[in-house]
Parts: sequence; structure tokens; C-alpha cells
Amino acid sequence: MSDSIEFYFDFSSPYGYLAAERIDGIAARHGRDVSWRPYLMGVAMKVTGSSPIVNRPMLGEYSRRDMQRSARRLKVPFSFPEPFPIATIAACRAVYWKERAGAEEAKSLARALYRAYFADGRNISEAEVVADVAAESGADRDALLAGIQDSAVKDRLKDVTNDAVARGIFGSPFFVVDGEPFWGHDRMDEVERWLETGGW
Amino acid sequence: MSDSIEFYFDFSSPYGYLAAERIDGIAARHGRDVSWRPYLMGVAMKVTGSSPIVNRPMLGEYSRRDMQRSARRLKVPFSFPEPFPIATIAACRAVYWKERAGAEEAKSLARALYRAYFADGRNISEAEVVADVAAESGADRDALLAGIQDSAVKDRLKDVTNDAVARGIFGSPFFVVDGEPFWGHDRMDEVERWLETGGW
Repeated sequence: MSDSIEFYFDFSSPYGYLAAERIDGIAARHGRDVSWRPYLMGVAMKVTGSSPIVNRPMLGEYSRRDMQRSARRLKVPFSFPEPFPIATIAACRAVYWKERAGAEEAKSLARALYRAYFADGRNISEAEVVADVAAESGADRDALLAGIQDSAVKDRLKDVTNDAVARGIFGSPFFVVDGEPFWGHDRMDEVERWLETGGW
Repeated sequence: MSDSIEFYFDFSSPYGYLAAERIDGIAARHGRDVSWRPYLMGVAMKVTGSSPIVNRPMLGEYSRRDMQRSARRLKVPFSFPEPFPIATIAACRAVYWKERAGAEEAKSLARALYRAYFADGRNISEAEVVADVAAESGADRDALLAGIQDSAVKDRLKDVTNDAVARGIFGSPFFVVDGEPFWGHDRMDEVERWLETGGW
């Protein structure tokens, strides 16, 4: 099997959520798997000098419309959450803690967290809410709350985030396919074409 | 015939150039025509608080790669120009001056100016270069140089730009299809789908 597709995302990113609903299907059609890498996009945004698009004049109104339109097209449940954006450290750490049980288990939790926030409006910045979501799919609540305080889990998130920024990764979603970077939910058709053709 | 598609663009925008090579074909497949509206995107960028992406850390390197990759996929000749970005007042005014001869004449000049800059590296911020490009397709050089100083032409550019910003239009390319806004070359597949389906 060829290398995994790297999928970087931030739990506070609407387009990351849409991408999370699609990327494994795209990869599977081309015999690939996907390494899910939640990270703290805010660290990269400090370097790029970016601010959340939804809070900016004109861009904000347009982008909310575009997010909803994109979700409708894909038939993905989406309701713009409040508060927004949120801190995602607890959610990220929970996924890296869950990864010890297996990559698929970690992905399932990540999908559930994204849906909790963007479909159901639950505030996943709170560790208790993260634990609730994990418990709904059978995780041990107390083990999770302890796990996200584990120093190895904390370090894993720091390392993933710092490595991402060092490699020039800055957005959400952000994909790396055989060394080629693709930024944005709107590049997923290109990701698929790259997988089909080997690049151009 | 249904309403025209509005196509706003800035002559210093690489993705606007790619869009200019494609939009009339998309519109024609759905029995539409296109109103080309070059404008001064910098006026909108002051409102949105944006700065040119190619000059920003990490984003700059990625975006140059993405522009070249997008152009290769579309088989559109593209060479990242220097200087960049440039002032586009002369180019915009030339198109509005040419519009007096007809919309198709204005579009032909706009396409030629875009290619001069992004394919051939000619500095279309200079009125003399704009006049050269226009003359190559038969325009009267001196008439053009006088035309871009005409106050009605100047006012037309100001009005288009101010109206755009007042309507929440801020990027390049930016399309309006039956009242629905679409920002970005990467939304052109959605523009086409909107034309096909009437929206979703």
C-alpha cells in the first residue's frame, strides 16, 4: 500500500469538519488510508498573520453563507455554532489519547467530536463535553479525563503542531499527498485527481 | 435569456486570470453571458483587512505553488510575474474605455491584458504597456491613452469599485449568479452546478 494521506485539521474549523466527512471515502477509492492529525491551527495562524475569517468585515458574512451552502451541497448536517471559534486542546488531546486504542477508534472519536460541535452545537472546548461525547461511543469517561492530562498525550499534540508549522502546514483542512500540499476543503477534488493521476 | 453572470476581478489577481480563461465557456454551456467588471480589489481589501497572500509567511510559498499547479491543470500559460502585485488602474480604465466599442471588444482586451501580465511578464501597471497590448489587437494607441484619462471612464471604474464594496464583493475572482455570491477560482465548479440546478 502506498503512503497514507496526511490530514491536518483544527476542531474549530467548519471546512475541516466537512473534509472529515469525506476524506476517508476519497482515499479508499484509491487504495489509500488517511492519517488524521488534529492540531492547534492558532499556532500556525500566528506565523501567517491570519485571523478567523468569520470575524472579518464582508468576509465573515460571505464565509458563513459559503459554509452553509457547502454543507447543503454535501448533505452534511451543519449549524453554525456559538461560541465560535473555540479552544480545541481538550478535543485534540482526546483523539491522541484514543489513538492508543487504534487509529480507527481515534478517527471515530474525531468524527463524533466534529459532529457534536458543528451539527449539534455542543461546546467541545470543555473537557467534560469531550468526555460525554467519547462516553456515548463507549469510552471510559474517567479514563479519558485522566488521559487528556497525560504528559505524553500533551507532548504528542505539541509535537504534531510544531512539526506541522515547521513543514509549512497552516490551514484546516490541509492535506499532504505523496509530499504534495493541498490547503482547503475546496482542494479535495484536486486531491482526488492527484491520487488518480499521480500528479501533473 | 436569463441575467448575466457578474464577474468581478482585479488585473493583479492570478486566480482572476485563470477565471478569465474559463468563465465565458461555463456561461455559454448554460445559455448565459457574462458581465466583466474589472475593479480595484485593494479598496475592498482595506475594508476586509486583507493583505496580498503571496507576501505572507507560509501562505506565500504555498499559494505560488498552488497557482502554478492550478494553471498546469487547466493548461493555461502562467509564469509568476515581477513586479507583483501591481497597480491596475490603467488596465481597468482601458477596459471600460473599450467597452464603448462593445462588450466583446472589452473582454478581448481584458483577456489580452491578463495574458500579457501572467503569461508574458509585461508590466501592465504602465499605461504605455496597456496601450501596446491594445494596439496589438488593432486599437488606436493614442485614442486609448487619451481615453484612460477621460473623466467618464475614471468615474466608471470608481463607481464599479464602490458599488462592489457596498454589495459585499471583495475578492478576485468574485461571481454573482442570480444574486448568489461565489468567491474564488475554486468555486467555479459550484458556479456551474448552480447554473445547472438553479441552486440548492
